[in-house]
Amino acid sequence: MSQPSIPKGTRDFSPEEMAKRNYIFDTIREVFKLYGFRQIETPAMENLSTLMGKYGEEGDKLLFKILNSGDYLKDLSNEELLEKNSTRLATKISEKGLRYDLTVPFARYVVMHRNEITFPFKRYQIQPVWRADRPQKGRYREFFQCDADIVGSDSLINEVELIQIADEVFSRFGIRVSIKLNNRKILSGIAEIIGEAEKITDITVAIDKLDKIGLEKVNEELASKGIPQKAIEQLQPIILLQGTNEEKLNTLKTVLKDSETGIQGVNELEYILNKLKIVGMRCELELDLTLARGLNYYTGAIIEVKALDVQIGSITGGGRYDNLTGIFGLSGVSGVGISFGADRIFDVLNQLDLYPKDSIQNTQVLFVNFGEKEEAHILPLILKMRQTGISTEIFPEAAKMKKQMSYADSNKIPYVAIVGENEINEHKITLKDMTSGEQKSLSLEECISILS
Amino acid sequence: MSQPSIPKGTRDFSPEEMAKRNYIFDTIREVFKLYGFRQIETPAMENLSTLMGKYGEEGDKLLFKILNSGDYLKDLSNEELLEKNSTRLATKISEKGLRYDLTVPFARYVVMHRNEITFPFKRYQIQPVWRADRPQKGRYREFFQCDADIVGSDSLINEVELIQIADEVFSRFGIRVSIKLNNRKILSGIAEIIGEAEKITDITVAIDKLDKIGLEKVNEELASKGIPQKAIEQLQPIILLQGTNEEKLNTLKTVLKDSETGIQGVNELEYILNKLKIVGMRCELELDLTLARGLNYYTGAIIEVKALDVQIGSITGGGRYDNLTGIFGLSGVSGVGISFGADRIFDVLNQLDLYPKDSIQNTQVLFVNFGEKEEAHILPLILKMRQTGISTEIFPEAAKMKKQMSYADSNKIPYVAIVGENEINEHKITLKDMTSGEQKSLSLEECISILS
Repeated sequence: MSQPSIPKGTRDFSPEEMAKRNYIFDTIREVFKLYGFRQIETPAMENLSTLMGKYGEEGDKLLFKILNSGDYLKDLSNEELLEKNSTRLATKISEKGLRYDLTVPFARYVVMHRNEITFPFKRYQIQPVWRADRPQKGRYREFFQCDADIVGSDSLINEVELIQIADEVFSRFGIRVSIKLNNRKILSGIAEIIGEAEKITDITVAIDKLDKIGLEKVNEELASKGIPQKAIEQLQPIILLQGTNEEKLNTLKTVLKDSETGIQGVNELEYILNKLKIVGMRCELELDLTLARGLNYYTGAIIEVKALDVQIGSITGGGRYDNLTGIFGLSGVSGVGISFGADRIFDVLNQLDLYPKDSIQNTQVLFVNFGEKEEAHILPLILKMRQTGISTEIFPEAAKMKKQMSYADSNKIPYVAIVGENEINEHKITLKDMTSGEQKSLSLEECISILS
Repeated sequence: MSQPSIPKGTRDFSPEEMAKRNYIFDTIREVFKLYGFRQIETPAMENLSTLMGKYGEEGDKLLFKILNSGDYLKDLSNEELLEKNSTRLATKISEKGLRYDLTVPFARYVVMHRNEITFPFKRYQIQPVWRADRPQKGRYREFFQCDADIVGSDSLINEVELIQIADEVFSRFGIRVSIKLNNRKILSGIAEIIGEAEKITDITVAIDKLDKIGLEKVNEELASKGIPQKAIEQLQPIILLQGTNEEKLNTLKTVLKDSETGIQGVNELEYILNKLKIVGMRCELELDLTLARGLNYYTGAIIEVKALDVQIGSITGGGRYDNLTGIFGLSGVSGVGISFGADRIFDVLNQLDLYPKDSIQNTQVLFVNFGEKEEAHILPLILKMRQTGISTEIFPEAAKMKKQMSYADSNKIPYVAIVGENEINEHKITLKDMTSGEQKSLSLEECISILS
């Protein structure tokens, strides 16, 4: 019999990993709830008609498709089969696919349930998604997204609250981060005033290199992308944009004064920054014009979070997108959201060793098993411990002491309770601290108060 | 554009439903943890080589199979295609399938990770599974299983603890249940002494009808199944088995005295019942010989839980199975487990309206939005509330009061905080109790103490 394995790009999660992952999900969930977001879940499988065409041509290829049940070849002609066109045949033998992200299913949810939903609708969703990407370090075919979105409200208070959520989540994790902010309208304004609307990606990519290659090389790169000299000159204050967020905003106000869209973007950013000043932020907050993620997608604020002490891509991102549900025929519903990258946060917490000790601990105490007579004595003690909320185990067999101790050790159980004949006679429990090795003879109540 | 929909047999879960489902999962998880079980998760997709042949021929058909990525038709001959054999072609164009239950993936996990695992291994797992069953009321194509199993231990203490877990879980839910117990070895013993080993299912089905059709008809049914008159006579004490669990055990001891296996089953049951008497049970516990679930599967204890106040199939089941991992080449690993049926428990809690009020509540207070000036004043108040753990929302726009109130109403938010010009001047918050309609003028601290 061959060794069993799992599909490439997928993972098993051990108890240790699950404890860490639960700590991450629980922290994010708690903050989402604190801000009034309400959880939904959608099925792992969606109709392919819901998914196809929503992620570009490349995305369509990365969808996992489910083979129709039953005799799926029944209605196919010989010609259709012999054509050997995998893409075309897929549409005939597969009607369902695995969810690729949480955004499209959410849009589908909002449209399907629009009569039950009270808008604005603040929802969060923590579920796995699947992509048939080439697996590589840190990239999986099954991974988890943690999204919070508000739909049906244009108010910038939503952006403010999403940034507060990021601030709160990373403060709770103890991860030092920089929250980077931009606004699609500012980028549009820049493109507008220099008359190079379609070159905005080239421009942001070039600006991003300033620290690395210097001003001269940045200008050369812009020129090489076909941006005229005059436009490059107009871009200089933007490339060299520095100082506090307020100073940057002031520069932008001057540079963008002739672009209505640009000024609107500046005003939006200013509103958001002002409100965040009122509530106070613990994380660094930086206006960053090179932030151009999801440029075809976002229409207003763009948010990205970078860890300061670990070399890794962005660990959280989000922004405002208008017309989320338009793809399903419901227009005029604006949305703004944030998505935490659980897998990368997992890596960061691991690298910085930031897990609180009690978050990754399971059982608090193991009762040694000496045989049936002792079992009868300790079962009620164990019940009492559990009744006070102490996670308690009894080793199921009267195995050698060494084996039972090594079980406690491997499972990182901090205390072992020993109740043999002496302890039974004296109505005591010998409690061994597995870290210090210290043993104490205690009453049940004393044990409970130590373990609680 | 056509209305979007979801695949048949799948479900979206609304915030209300999620709150209820989380209450169910959290309760079960908490009890699992209290008993020292540790969580694992496995991927949604498994290799078909792991899944096929494990659930019988019917099960193989009910697996959701994933179409291979890329040009999956490339290596197929014209002959293979024109054969139009859906089953055979599936093996060439699909290598992965969605998990069908949590047991086979767990067995696969144990074998793959056997060098990292310290046995006995107590694991729990709460994840969805998928079956291409015909959808019908209460049966879905995506549903959740909540399993706890111990592998690598023959001790009956495990059975005792699993029954304690069921007792604890249903006590916490407030669902009145009967926990039914049987032992495969007793059934084998019965078959052995009457010399009708292969008729054991017919026998249990017939015995089960005693209450409905009476002794005479039961005996007729047994005869009609080809069981000889002498065997039917020997079965009489078993068909008429009544009284307390102890009385039943005593009868069985007499009837089964010539079957070593049968007596072993009786002794196992006796051990379990004795230990449960020591710790005390809150739920009804009944020795039930008609319990024959998973007969081909279980080798020792069989456990089933039935709700007493709702007409529904069993809501939890489990038992001992030897050689779980044998299918993957690792023999000699005995296991015993229990599986809670979350979907049926959901239905029972709904029908009996047993959800604790605070388990299904999200936001505790909504701040009315009167405009930007008031926003600036209340944002710090909201932050303080959240810092004390109170789930707080601000309505994102300065909409009409009626709209904001109706938002609170629809989302079952119990309190609304009103802070207009007067309140700002007086440093007060007007807190409205949405149930009683009562309004009070309070300080922030007073609000917090009411809402905490």
